[in-house]
Amino acid sequence: MSGNESLLGQIKSPRDLSSLNLSDLTKLCAEIRRIIIETVAKNGGHLSSNLGVVELSVALHAVFDSPKDTIVWDVGHQCYAHKLLTGRFSRFSTLRQQGGIAGFPRRLESEHDSFDTGHASTSISVALGFLEAETLSGGTGRCIALIGDGALTGGLAYEALSNAGQLRLPLIVLLNDNRMSISPNVGGLSKHLSRLSMTRKYQIFRVTFDSLVQKIPLIGNWLNRAVRRLKRAVKAVFYHDNFFVDLGFEYVGPIDGHNLAELLGVLNNVRKLERPVVVHIITQKGRGYEAAEKDPGAFHSVPPFSSDEGKVPASGASWTRAFGEALVAAARRNDKILAVSAAMARGAGLSRFNAEFPRRFYDVGIAEAHAVSFAAALAARGFRPVVAIYSTFIQRAVDSIIHDTAIGKLPVVFILDRAGFVGADGETHQGLFDIALFRAVPEMTLLAPADAGELSLMLDWALALPSPCAIRYPKAPLPEPHPAFAVPLELGRGVLLKGGGCGGEAGEKSALCLAFTGSLYPQALRAAELLAESGISCDLYNLRFLKPLDEDYLAALVSGYQHFYIIEEGCRCGGVGECIADLLLGKKLSGKIRTLNAGDQFYAVGTREELLSLAGLDGEGIARCALGAFSPC
Amino acid sequence: MSGNESLLGQIKSPRDLSSLNLSDLTKLCAEIRRIIIETVAKNGGHLSSNLGVVELSVALHAVFDSPKDTIVWDVGHQCYAHKLLTGRFSRFSTLRQQGGIAGFPRRLESEHDSFDTGHASTSISVALGFLEAETLSGGTGRCIALIGDGALTGGLAYEALSNAGQLRLPLIVLLNDNRMSISPNVGGLSKHLSRLSMTRKYQIFRVTFDSLVQKIPLIGNWLNRAVRRLKRAVKAVFYHDNFFVDLGFEYVGPIDGHNLAELLGVLNNVRKLERPVVVHIITQKGRGYEAAEKDPGAFHSVPPFSSDEGKVPASGASWTRAFGEALVAAARRNDKILAVSAAMARGAGLSRFNAEFPRRFYDVGIAEAHAVSFAAALAARGFRPVVAIYSTFIQRAVDSIIHDTAIGKLPVVFILDRAGFVGADGETHQGLFDIALFRAVPEMTLLAPADAGELSLMLDWALALPSPCAIRYPKAPLPEPHPAFAVPLELGRGVLLKGGGCGGEAGEKSALCLAFTGSLYPQALRAAELLAESGISCDLYNLRFLKPLDEDYLAALVSGYQHFYIIEEGCRCGGVGECIADLLLGKKLSGKIRTLNAGDQFYAVGTREELLSLAGLDGEGIARCALGAFSPC
Repeated sequence: MSGNESLLGQIKSPRDLSSLNLSDLTKLCAEIRRIIIETVAKNGGHLSSNLGVVELSVALHAVFDSPKDTIVWDVGHQCYAHKLLTGRFSRFSTLRQQGGIAGFPRRLESEHDSFDTGHASTSISVALGFLEAETLSGGTGRCIALIGDGALTGGLAYEALSNAGQLRLPLIVLLNDNRMSISPNVGGLSKHLSRLSMTRKYQIFRVTFDSLVQKIPLIGNWLNRAVRRLKRAVKAVFYHDNFFVDLGFEYVGPIDGHNLAELLGVLNNVRKLERPVVVHIITQKGRGYEAAEKDPGAFHSVPPFSSDEGKVPASGASWTRAFGEALVAAARRNDKILAVSAAMARGAGLSRFNAEFPRRFYDVGIAEAHAVSFAAALAARGFRPVVAIYSTFIQRAVDSIIHDTAIGKLPVVFILDRAGFVGADGETHQGLFDIALFRAVPEMTLLAPADAGELSLMLDWALALPSPCAIRYPKAPLPEPHPAFAVPLELGRGVLLKGGGCGGEAGEKSALCLAFTGSLYPQALRAAELLAESGISCDLYNLRFLKPLDEDYLAALVSGYQHFYIIEEGCRCGGVGECIADLLLGKKLSGKIRTLNAGDQFYAVGTREELLSLAGLDGEGIARCALGAFSPC
Repeated sequence: MSGNESLLGQIKSPRDLSSLNLSDLTKLCAEIRRIIIETVAKNGGHLSSNLGVVELSVALHAVFDSPKDTIVWDVGHQCYAHKLLTGRFSRFSTLRQQGGIAGFPRRLESEHDSFDTGHASTSISVALGFLEAETLSGGTGRCIALIGDGALTGGLAYEALSNAGQLRLPLIVLLNDNRMSISPNVGGLSKHLSRLSMTRKYQIFRVTFDSLVQKIPLIGNWLNRAVRRLKRAVKAVFYHDNFFVDLGFEYVGPIDGHNLAELLGVLNNVRKLERPVVVHIITQKGRGYEAAEKDPGAFHSVPPFSSDEGKVPASGASWTRAFGEALVAAARRNDKILAVSAAMARGAGLSRFNAEFPRRFYDVGIAEAHAVSFAAALAARGFRPVVAIYSTFIQRAVDSIIHDTAIGKLPVVFILDRAGFVGADGETHQGLFDIALFRAVPEMTLLAPADAGELSLMLDWALALPSPCAIRYPKAPLPEPHPAFAVPLELGRGVLLKGGGCGGEAGEKSALCLAFTGSLYPQALRAAELLAESGISCDLYNLRFLKPLDEDYLAALVSGYQHFYIIEEGCRCGGVGECIADLLLGKKLSGKIRTLNAGDQFYAVGTREELLSLAGLDGEGIARCALGAFSPC
């Protein structure tokens, strides 16, 4: 670090902020911004959100006494300044690297990270739980939930607000209103927040007007009541008898989230309140970095980039893009096709669809359950909705899938992007549970393509199915396409590649078959190469269908091998491996089977490659396992 | 039916209502009430909620034109009057019987049942989807969501309200405000609704006051603006610039839900509106049946009872009650134990806990996800929260379990009541997915007791565990306790009962073992009896642990038998059967295994016994299956 970053170097714990005056704190904010931009440019990470809350993070730690006071960061991707202020400055260059500083709060990393977060809308529930625990224990620590306006569209946040309004505990909710979640914000609440955001001038007027009303004398009984009512009425307009007040909160704001003095003043007052309060803070995503200010969406979550150029490198051909193109092509042929996103239009590859078919595109906000239930109703009326959501976020819509979609056998198509290991976002974002969750649902079909052509094939097939169907693919570069994957789909059956998929000798009989879920095609291919080097020939089997499986077809296939490995990028429990083991019990074939998967554990930060290796699902791991079977133990 | 029920007999479709005048419609309401009370007394069912919406149902069908206009019943347990008015009067005596009229809306049953419902808070999402489909198709049908104030505490309802406010489609939301969900209503929103519910007198005053304000002349520029502002202010007090308005809705109400004339008038006006609107309707649960009016909770969902006596028969010793008693006993010993309910305090057996430890009890409303995330935070602070939720409703909290509980390895205890077949509530309420959902989650322990003593043992064990744990039991009478189930728990291991659990000959070696999930203990016992009659001796194995499993212990156990059956009350995919099949692959033992379970399908209405039989999980079904293995095929 260069010498002029002296202030941050002195902050060993948040208490050290108390020795700094306003001018120093302002300087500190500039330092933090510089480090965040440098580090994210080097390591990748969340940029826009972190630049938006620098002053807020400094003010929070200057006013409150963490960890006695508890700060819960909703989503948590905006915690970089917080991490820099809580003893992690010296290790910050390891951000989002395996074994390094996580990009999200992690309890094991610091006593100042109160809770493991990653998904949106959880902070109010959690902070309320902390506050109730504090109250039961007779403690006096304050509990603060910092939540974005985007996360506030999630139903969980509302459930918690409603419950907090009832409990009347002095919960502090800081509403970080940047008019964006990840895509530009949507929904009735968003409009409401915009109306609340008055100009400075209006605020001054409000204060003057209110002091006038206070002076109206209260004489007589009838007049007394009437005036009281009038005063209340006037207050209702200016103090906004609003959404939050309706739910039982005090409301303060909106205030300028980049004005340190104002933040410090308001937070100091709020700290003393004995009732639940919402502080409405206006911030700007990407603040202080021009390129991110101009296009905060592009700098939401970025790979390494040149901070001087201020341009995010264009990503190569990806699964996400392939899906977006396939969907647009399908939608041109069939005007019943609609697309539904939960605040992830860009991330889920729907930008082009939205541009071409704006009337057939819905961004419902961070509201995955609603996205699914809404789509189910559209499907019940003959439309073909495609709900594109990250694998990890679909966990929030399980009952909408079972109760609203599958019971009615409604043909919603679920696109599960980032299924499998996602890398640097860590435990909260790995897409390892979708296979288990979707397989449990009756009437559901679950597909996993191995290349872009197959994805397109599967999408068309799913869009013709009279029942719900999910397609999962990883956050990974697209593999070289294989012509065999272009053959039409047959229900429950996969595609066999003889001789390790490289067009090996058709005459040569393999003793081993590696069956894989689509995302692991490159790894299976690599394993076959490695095995070939050791003189072991194997066939590859692209499962295609993770549900349903054609039992007899599979049995016939398995019976031709000595060893049949099922390799899947997902958790063991409820996986397709367990399913096949069970299916083949009756055929007395299960003894030939071996299942490889991500096991029964969470995975912390690492690249996709590192995590695949850790789970033994990279080419080397698969080959090692297979070699074991061919050598005397 | 007696002769004086003449009106209802004439209503073959809702259109027949148009020939009736107000007096006839009033008479019709009385007939409907009588039939509902008679039928529920005979068949069991939901009473209070249905009696509360008789006038509303009649008014809805008199004003709107179903199925061109679409009515979505939230939860759906209040659809009895709707069913009587839509061609199902003659078959209504089969209510909630296998093959009869379902207790919830079912699309396959009538074109007037627009969507399959059963869980709360889905109606606004669904009605919005229908309305958007109608708009895209150029139709003019209206879409109406009827939702209770209880269901409105669910996050999904809020996500949908927010999205609807954005889309600005003329969605009609009828808020059926009965100040109850199933337990008395809670939460900030509930308080807000109470404030909105003005007296009649207040409403008259409002109208007068408003007409006065309208007459204030608008002259001059400054005055003009000031008066406009004043008018707005006055309106804000009386027209309630409220929660719904904040989200982009018009607000009408509150109106008296038992005043047919008022309902007809308001609904007729609302039908013409071109904007989203919330109509706030006050109803009384149990209306017209004194015993239910007095204690609507007791008559929420009832078994058959004597309608003359007006008393619900006390239920026998049940799993729910055994849990309630065990929890109170544990809580007396450990003051860190807290209980959390999602609007199901009575149903989930928490009434006694609440009475004895009100300060340690939380009813968060119909908000399962919040219940879990809130509990996770309490657990992070050293408390021992017990979240008691029905198996089917826990589907709404999957991400709170994975993301907020398991990643942090937080010791929340989940009590899954009504796990397995629940009978007369049908597809939406069967508790068949919890095993798959919980097994997929790393760090999770899943237990299934076979008798009350074991439940108590497991609860104490779970409360001492440093990680999350779930305990599942059925909606069924308690079986006779077995002394062997009183032995202390060992991680991953079950309890073996030699000779079919009836103290058979210790010397006799069984070729068959029936391993079962706790709820199927009586069925396994019965199967053993039947097999003994055929001269086949079998052992029984109470699994106790559905996760984790002690692999070596299990392998040793299985190796001693020719046949090892795993019998579970849950879906096949992701079940413990699949898991064991996979676990024993490496031991070359999987060939001995056979898995019996509820398969991969939804189950409609039937008694628990009927459904177990249908799935082949009753004693006869299990024995039949085993006999097959012992006879030459």
